[in-house]
Amino acid sequence: MHLSSATAMLAAARTEAERLGVTVCVSIVDAAAWPVAFIRMEGTILGAIDVSNRKARTAALFQMDSSDFARIACPGGDAYSLENTNGGLTSFGGGVVLKSGDGTFLGAIGVSGASTEDDIAIARVAATALAA
Amino acid sequence: MHLSSATAMLAAARTEAERLGVTVCVSIVDAAAWPVAFIRMEGTILGAIDVSNRKARTAALFQMDSSDFARIACPGGDAYSLENTNGGLTSFGGGVVLKSGDGTFLGAIGVSGASTEDDIAIARVAATALAA
Amino acid sequence: MHLSSATAMLAAARTEAERLGVTVCVSIVDAAAWPVAFIRMEGTILGAIDVSNRKARTAALFQMDSSDFARIACPGGDAYSLENTNGGLTSFGGGVVLKSGDGTFLGAIGVSGASTEDDIAIARVAATALAA
Amino acid sequence: MHLSSATAMLAAARTEAERLGVTVCVSIVDAAAWPVAFIRMEGTILGAIDVSNRKARTAALFQMDSSDFARIACPGGDAYSLENTNGGLTSFGGGVVLKSGDGTFLGAIGVSGASTEDDIAIARVAATALAA
Repeated sequence: MHLSSATAMLAAARTEAERLGVTVCVSIVDAAAWPVAFIRMEGTILGAIDVSNRKARTAALFQMDSSDFARIACPGGDAYSLENTNGGLTSFGGGVVLKSGDGTFLGAIGVSGASTEDDIAIARVAATALAA
Repeated sequence: MHLSSATAMLAAARTEAERLGVTVCVSIVDAAAWPVAFIRMEGTILGAIDVSNRKARTAALFQMDSSDFARIACPGGDAYSLENTNGGLTSFGGGVVLKSGDGTFLGAIGVSGASTEDDIAIARVAATALAA
Repeated sequence: MHLSSATAMLAAARTEAERLGVTVCVSIVDAAAWPVAFIRMEGTILGAIDVSNRKARTAALFQMDSSDFARIACPGGDAYSLENTNGGLTSFGGGVVLKSGDGTFLGAIGVSGASTEDDIAIARVAATALAA
Repeated sequence: MHLSSATAMLAAARTEAERLGVTVCVSIVDAAAWPVAFIRMEGTILGAIDVSNRKARTAALFQMDSSDFARIACPGGDAYSLENTNGGLTSFGGGVVLKSGDGTFLGAIGVSGASTEDDIAIARVAATALAA
């Protein structure tokens, strides 16, 4: 994950959030789940800082979007309690896996602050800036 | 959040608790979720200290009463696992958002020690002392 | 420790801080080191919140003013590492033991936000409000 | 602290680090010590992520550069053990207070990854981008 790729994704996320009329935090982590870059848009609820970080971490640690992780890591799910490992993970959408054009796993992006639907949409739009 | 507003809310909470015949802890935090003032009434269960602090923190971090937060942040809720972010949040009532007359977000109040119903009622009565 | 005694000490601390032209946090704990009451004056540095809590806790847990605790709990002191017990204690002044007129241990007060000298002075003035 | 001011400081820090031939993490927090923006330059040691965050947090919580904090918060210093409060603070340079042109406290920047001398130099250069 190049820092310039990460900042390009942050800029794309910010533009998409503005287009949707929402404010969010955006966190990008590398393939080893370590933070690469982060922004908090003005007016975003403060609780979203930790949530966007955890969404990115969840997606990176399991190489799985957090909306997919949510299906197995919940009461009644096939891997209930998995969400309580690794310091606490996120069992809802907004964490998206990042891959290169040839499918190599590069890290993940987490978005939080809007509705889960909008968070996911922003993360997906931002992810396309990686390939650009 | 002025300290004098916070202490006025603490006094109002205490009066309402006495009227209801219960004892509680009351925590007030500012818009950035930092503590402003706190009291524990004599005879309140000790476990309520941390709970009132977390109720106030939950409401401030998500700008949402903790009773509303409870609907999404629980097993089966749309944001299950959200309650485990930010160091652990409160997924039941008694944390109430504080706003100025013109709707500006000012912080939150948390009440714990009585029934959840009474905790909420005390927090709401106390919140009206802010506007006074 | 009666809550009314605690709030009387908070008011006395606030008056003394205003007289000295400083802003502080004031924390009061009972004989079991559990929080009873707290205030943060407007404009106080945010780092002082945790410090005032720990000063009161230190004085209560060892029934010793934190300025006395400082002499033994430091590198080279007779009880070096004691400051790292109990979740982290405070090895400088501003935590003061509270006793009743007959010498019964009642709890402690912690003050932080000004110089250590002023913090101590404010704590001592506030402590006299207990007996009043 | 506007996000655009924060990202301008991040860009200035990155340029200065490249000029010095070093790689660093840069963390910017607001006046309430909440994260606003963060970058990790490629090749930066991973341990620097947490360090840059704590440097910024230390400077914001005490409204004091971490190099000044270091003089009091150390064995033998006037406030030994202060470095262990607030979840662990940083008692060496690289956290720098951010103020507006009229002296209003706005937050802090933390830099870590190079020598402490270079970290401080980068933080100071970046801070000048705030006023620009």
